[in-house]
Amino acid sequence: MPLTNHKFLLAARPVGMPKRTDWTYVEEPADEPKDGEFQVQVLYISLDPAMRGWVNEVRSYVAPVAIGEVMRALGLGVVTASRNPRFAVGDHVSGLFGVQEYALTDGTGVRKIDARILPLPKYLSVLGMTGMTAYFGLLDTGQPKPGETVVVSAAAGAVGTIVGQIAKIKNCHVVGIAGGPEKCRYIVEDLGFDAAIDYKSEDVRRSLRQHCPKGIDVYFDNVGGSILEAALANLARGARIVICGAISQYCSTAPVAGPSNYMSLLINRASMKGMLVMDYVDRYPQAGAEMAAWMAAGKLKSREDIVEGLETFPETLLKLFKGENNSKLMLKVS
Amino acid sequence: MPLTNHKFLLAARPVGMPKRTDWTYVEEPADEPKDGEFQVQVLYISLDPAMRGWVNEVRSYVAPVAIGEVMRALGLGVVTASRNPRFAVGDHVSGLFGVQEYALTDGTGVRKIDARILPLPKYLSVLGMTGMTAYFGLLDTGQPKPGETVVVSAAAGAVGTIVGQIAKIKNCHVVGIAGGPEKCRYIVEDLGFDAAIDYKSEDVRRSLRQHCPKGIDVYFDNVGGSILEAALANLARGARIVICGAISQYCSTAPVAGPSNYMSLLINRASMKGMLVMDYVDRYPQAGAEMAAWMAAGKLKSREDIVEGLETFPETLLKLFKGENNSKLMLKVS
Repeated sequence: MPLTNHKFLLAARPVGMPKRTDWTYVEEPADEPKDGEFQVQVLYISLDPAMRGWVNEVRSYVAPVAIGEVMRALGLGVVTASRNPRFAVGDHVSGLFGVQEYALTDGTGVRKIDARILPLPKYLSVLGMTGMTAYFGLLDTGQPKPGETVVVSAAAGAVGTIVGQIAKIKNCHVVGIAGGPEKCRYIVEDLGFDAAIDYKSEDVRRSLRQHCPKGIDVYFDNVGGSILEAALANLARGARIVICGAISQYCSTAPVAGPSNYMSLLINRASMKGMLVMDYVDRYPQAGAEMAAWMAAGKLKSREDIVEGLETFPETLLKLFKGENNSKLMLKVS
Repeated sequence: MPLTNHKFLLAARPVGMPKRTDWTYVEEPADEPKDGEFQVQVLYISLDPAMRGWVNEVRSYVAPVAIGEVMRALGLGVVTASRNPRFAVGDHVSGLFGVQEYALTDGTGVRKIDARILPLPKYLSVLGMTGMTAYFGLLDTGQPKPGETVVVSAAAGAVGTIVGQIAKIKNCHVVGIAGGPEKCRYIVEDLGFDAAIDYKSEDVRRSLRQHCPKGIDVYFDNVGGSILEAALANLARGARIVICGAISQYCSTAPVAGPSNYMSLLINRASMKGMLVMDYVDRYPQAGAEMAAWMAAGKLKSREDIVEGLETFPETLLKLFKGENNSKLMLKVS
């Protein structure tokens, strides 16, 4: 008696904010593993801003999701059937399992998880791609030094919360930019940022000048647009801008706004560099061990925003683009 | 009987292209040196795109030229009177002498020149700030490796011609972007670039794709605007963009166009970094010696576009912004 699989297929390339009709919700029997493959029951699905880029038909760092294909997503699950000697039934694993209940894989890009150490959702947040992005983007690309000023945008988001906390661990002065008083309170009071700027009620350029009197040494950008310009207007000499994302632009139907004051890079002998976490895959174990130790020591906290129900995917995804998520957004598959 | 000095003072902050009425042409007696100072008869005045930025009232890497002040300019001259033990009458020197016939200086930032080795104008072009900008911008910021593809804009200009030739010396595949068939012919046939793209008659984005089939590894940008966007659209993984200037934007009265496709930096794990030649002043002698050796070996050529007459300054300067200069533009003071 085969299992039933529910999944979301890409039906149309979204224009602006994705709509429910951009996806097709399908019910069909789950596939059985062939030789070398195994079946994963997906327990949690990571919802990430990058997913908006994956459904655009443009040249990028990965091929776009094809029309009719299962929507691409990172996830975490348990092996339910296996014809692969490296993975046994009952193993917990993470990988690109897609927005569905049961995934079939040959193990490419799949990592095993020790579910006894931390609650499973942590392996999609601080110990998953999210945490790795923060860790390598800040430390490897941003190269913060003790006493320097680090600014992060989308600071109450999944990556931003971790960036700011690691910067504090590295003895930096840390300023977060977030939307609304509750997010600003959270990053300062609960996470220990030195200051927060509410972009919904403040003039970000002026507030950055106030909170960063010596200028910004490292700016970790998740948003692009006018906040990137405000940061460029407040750089210290030799500043490093880490380009991690541009969520303000992903669902915009207007032409992307490039930073009009990019010549601040010349005036300040500064750099702007893009990073992709997948380039650091060989170093994930070392970073994961270090971050787990920080968590155990109470220096690194994470919060997961878990929404139940695979079928809510189209609407839940939009929380990211409306700034309605609290840190790491994920789906719990019922 | 004191000498007569002619000089250009800044009269108004230019809007768009500078006009003659933005300057005042003044005749007055030349000042005599006080203790520690010396007088320089200016022989050649360097005309550089950066001068357009120096007259804007904005925060930059140097203070703006004040209204009523002598227009700032690099120059080269001979000491005509001295009360400074380090500089003797007859010494040839270069420094920020301004747009005038006689400058008074205490020697800050002044370098002596050995006028017996090369014709004087070479010390304002390939062996001056121009050459140093090309040398350090390409080698230190761009970090080209043998076999890599290097693209330079304003390729027939003062800096661009040197960037391209040094890249050839370093065994790179070199593509120059210039305006018009004569400039394109010059950089390929006379200077040995591998290819030239005429931005006035070609689709630069498409031509870059054709001439850089493996993508651009180093893009040396002197122009900004749509050509920077075309380069961003054709980066190789790990590309380095050197931000040296943005001449397409300096005289524009429209808002500066930021590169709308800057997220190519993320897709390609690429960087964009600003450079200012003054940061390398300690290494000028070593770079000058290396470039002089390349010139002696016939590997590095330079061309100077010398216009006679201090009084032509306002109109001659505009040649830069209209793309009418042939490589290094300078005034010969009669």
